[in-house]
Amino acid sequence: MRGTMQDWPLLCPKILDHAARLHPHRTILSRSVEGPLHTTTWAEVHSRARRVAKRLARDRIGFGDRVATLAWNTWRHLEVWYGLLGLGAIYHTVNPRLFHEQIAWIINDAEDRLLFVDLTFLPIVEILADKLPTIERIVVLTDGAHLPETRLTNVVAYEDWLAEADDDFAWATFDETTAAGLCYTSGTTGHPKGVLYSHRSNVLHAWQAATVDMFGCSSRDVVMPVVPMFHANCWSLAFTAPLVGAALVMPGAKLDGASIHEMLEVGRVTLTAAVPTVWLMLLRHMEAKGLGLSHLKRVVIGGAACPRAITEAFETTYDVRVAHAWGMTETSPLGTVCGPKPETADLDLAGRLDLQIKQGVPPFGVEMKITDDEGRERPRDGRAFGRLKVRGPAVTGAYFKGAGAECFDADGFFDTGDVATIDANGYMQITDRAKDVVKSGGEWISTIDLENLAIAHPDVQEAAVIGVPHPKWDERPLLIVVVKDGRSPTKDDILGFFEGKIAKWWMPDDVVFVDEIPHTATGKIQKTVLRERYAK
Amino acid sequence: MRGTMQDWPLLCPKILDHAARLHPHRTILSRSVEGPLHTTTWAEVHSRARRVAKRLARDRIGFGDRVATLAWNTWRHLEVWYGLLGLGAIYHTVNPRLFHEQIAWIINDAEDRLLFVDLTFLPIVEILADKLPTIERIVVLTDGAHLPETRLTNVVAYEDWLAEADDDFAWATFDETTAAGLCYTSGTTGHPKGVLYSHRSNVLHAWQAATVDMFGCSSRDVVMPVVPMFHANCWSLAFTAPLVGAALVMPGAKLDGASIHEMLEVGRVTLTAAVPTVWLMLLRHMEAKGLGLSHLKRVVIGGAACPRAITEAFETTYDVRVAHAWGMTETSPLGTVCGPKPETADLDLAGRLDLQIKQGVPPFGVEMKITDDEGRERPRDGRAFGRLKVRGPAVTGAYFKGAGAECFDADGFFDTGDVATIDANGYMQITDRAKDVVKSGGEWISTIDLENLAIAHPDVQEAAVIGVPHPKWDERPLLIVVVKDGRSPTKDDILGFFEGKIAKWWMPDDVVFVDEIPHTATGKIQKTVLRERYAK
Ligand SMILES: Nc1ncnc2c1ncn2[C@@H]1O[C@H](COP(=O)(O)O)[C@@H](O)[C@H]1O
Repeated sequence: MRGTMQDWPLLCPKILDHAARLHPHRTILSRSVEGPLHTTTWAEVHSRARRVAKRLARDRIGFGDRVATLAWNTWRHLEVWYGLLGLGAIYHTVNPRLFHEQIAWIINDAEDRLLFVDLTFLPIVEILADKLPTIERIVVLTDGAHLPETRLTNVVAYEDWLAEADDDFAWATFDETTAAGLCYTSGTTGHPKGVLYSHRSNVLHAWQAATVDMFGCSSRDVVMPVVPMFHANCWSLAFTAPLVGAALVMPGAKLDGASIHEMLEVGRVTLTAAVPTVWLMLLRHMEAKGLGLSHLKRVVIGGAACPRAITEAFETTYDVRVAHAWGMTETSPLGTVCGPKPETADLDLAGRLDLQIKQGVPPFGVEMKITDDEGRERPRDGRAFGRLKVRGPAVTGAYFKGAGAECFDADGFFDTGDVATIDANGYMQITDRAKDVVKSGGEWISTIDLENLAIAHPDVQEAAVIGVPHPKWDERPLLIVVVKDGRSPTKDDILGFFEGKIAKWWMPDDVVFVDEIPHTATGKIQKTVLRERYAK
Repeated sequence: MRGTMQDWPLLCPKILDHAARLHPHRTILSRSVEGPLHTTTWAEVHSRARRVAKRLARDRIGFGDRVATLAWNTWRHLEVWYGLLGLGAIYHTVNPRLFHEQIAWIINDAEDRLLFVDLTFLPIVEILADKLPTIERIVVLTDGAHLPETRLTNVVAYEDWLAEADDDFAWATFDETTAAGLCYTSGTTGHPKGVLYSHRSNVLHAWQAATVDMFGCSSRDVVMPVVPMFHANCWSLAFTAPLVGAALVMPGAKLDGASIHEMLEVGRVTLTAAVPTVWLMLLRHMEAKGLGLSHLKRVVIGGAACPRAITEAFETTYDVRVAHAWGMTETSPLGTVCGPKPETADLDLAGRLDLQIKQGVPPFGVEMKITDDEGRERPRDGRAFGRLKVRGPAVTGAYFKGAGAECFDADGFFDTGDVATIDANGYMQITDRAKDVVKSGGEWISTIDLENLAIAHPDVQEAAVIGVPHPKWDERPLLIVVVKDGRSPTKDDILGFFEGKIAKWWMPDDVVFVDEIPHTATGKIQKTVLRERYAK
């Protein structure tokens, strides 16, 4: 028997309708790519997004079409998203930090028809244009006056293009499972794989994100996503902010400490989110200049493990609450946020900082488990490691064009490729990547834990641990170390430092001293190369 | 093009799974109908709800079957809900305050197969049993020791019945639009009409309710729904609390001031919700005994307009934030909550109390408009009245068995039967019921406003305003007054009191003094009777 409730599909443009109707004058402050600060409102974004949709329709962009953006967080990028969404077309956010060949590859894989590009990234497009046969037109996110000379043909300034349409446009309606956005994982091996968010998943994820133990933002918040819109939906903030009627601050192209600090202060930001490196830059800048934070209440830190020192600085020096978060492109991305539960709300500072090393607790709508290689669930005792698997309405169930089918369980769980523990209070902690963890005698050893310990040694500059084949134990850990200039510790110095700090069987079998550890373009250690070199 | 996101239907039992997994030890404290306080946890409720489902299946209750409950808010009622939900069966909460004939009528209309009943209501069932042909079995929500003598056959104590099943049971899976719960409107005219909530609408509504500007509760809250589960899903709190991992306090059968105060204090309740009369009883009790509130932070008041005096007492004497809320059975029920927006956050106390008279702002997922009788939208200026119409995924689109089709617009909006204003900041205020508003020369006059003004007159005990036919203006207001003992104001005394306080054309054409104003069983003024008597 069916309920009598209304059929009201969960479509992203309804979020913007809501913000424009109930919070019309709430501002969106951006640092424009051209330079000056720019202010608009939800009512204006709503009007201009409808113009975008109408104008796109004139370019014969419609339902199911993919359109690429190579752009920073600004009001224009936001308008383009919602304009596309209002047609049932798909925003494909391209990460401009990828290698050029990868950018071309994913635009071609997506078969994007238009490309919206910020001035900053026009040079990349000039280099790649000949390799992008599906792109019919390039819209530069600026006005006519700022459009530079370019060898590209078929280029138009966004404001000129937009001036050709008014806002008398009604959003298209369609099934809520319709694709809304496309984002490729940065995948360290093989080609990038696309995740196609649906209208439904974006809306449900925005509701999840809005709950108190996640972002917990309201109409009285000013939210600044420093995390880019091209990084997994800027963690849903382009949806969650209008859903709750919050004001937005968009940092544009400048993510250095001084620029971020300026936006936090000028914009009176109360909630912000980004990866740890951004916060490191901000903290260094504030320390150097003796600055404080007048409005900020809460900072969400994710995308990589958040060092204790960053958390401590925010919590103690600046009186800002830190929410460590975990997620990935495949999970929309929010999977967990680390905040106080009644069981942990009364910890002292040291206890709180220990807790905040963990990635946190999933909201309703994210089912989470850890399993061994055979798929058997591992205990939730805070010690046992397992492959982290997730399920939910905002978790992908496949990749675009059927890639990566091996990541999905028979029971519908997505294997994240992360290895984690879950403690009795439900806090998840990432301990390794599945492909890096060392499997010794059936038990798992965290390479991240060993690396963190190694770099705590006063003579160690950088460290990496890999598993090397072993006749009896299958694998044993090998520690690879770059020593600090002028230091020359022995193997025994290093391993002696580990004693008493880890289980005996975690002790690396050997230490190799090297001059340099190889890295990827995004700064991650290339363990594949290390294994090639040292694990044979 | 479809997104690649997982197909994860929004089913209510998943909310309980979440609470049991992430918040297993969080408590549910109830005042049992037998008397003593009783404590359980989400993990135990989860286990016992699965036993309920398994046991129900043995009684051959399954998908689509309706099962009635005549019960207070207790852990057992909660277990029965989730047990039914886990089978795809439908909890039908019957309001025990209805007239006996109405109770029989709706149980027959629903074709309920079982009846779960609290000890308190067993006498009603004894009276009605012969008129309930579809009821196969009566389960009394108690243990064997407390089961009283009864002339009813086929009666079993819940705990005995439940003991016949273990918890090795997997929830059924089905489409999320499947009916989950059934609740009849108390409808003043004609038969009650049923609203069939779906799993989807309950889950989406719980997410809406959880947002900061609505209930804004978290895992650190202790939530007490005083509003009964038979009153429109106890305003979603039986879903919202486990969704966010909050603890629950269930007040059972005792809603008097002393009992509620005890539960607030003993249970360390931080958030609670009920109709104004409950809070009036609590405030009187606390004042009489000189008591305070040690833990309560926020009280949600709805179901009827909240008098300013109640709000003021909570805000000033007890330092508790008041959230005035509006909703109805047909809207799951939350439609609006009145809280601070940036535009109103800095009001002084008087301004805040004025604001809190309003019913508030809808969350994302509730579309709201006011229209004239022809369906044209009226201005959002805080002055223009209109019929209040709503649309959304947790708003009903029809009534059970096709009743009341006239309440639904061509564009899918539900006509609430309320008349309201919406101000420039989006705050809605109920000004009248559509059937009561006086339509004078094409403009609408609020009978509620006039009545409130009349009872402010020192000589007036009670007042009612009705429209009487008028040859030129269609209708004109007539004021009907009961004067206080020993007072004898003239018509001019009364009307003189209105002068300068209302627009001239709102002035009642006449005043009728009466000894008594007729009321319904639930205490509402019977305007139909007044119209019969005075508007001819
Ligand atoms: N808070 C965190 N701590 C540790 N690793 C993280 C965290 N957040 C994200 N990651 C890593 O980043 C991956 C997702 O990358 P991406 O899809 O590019 O966002 C995850 O699978 C994790 O390995």
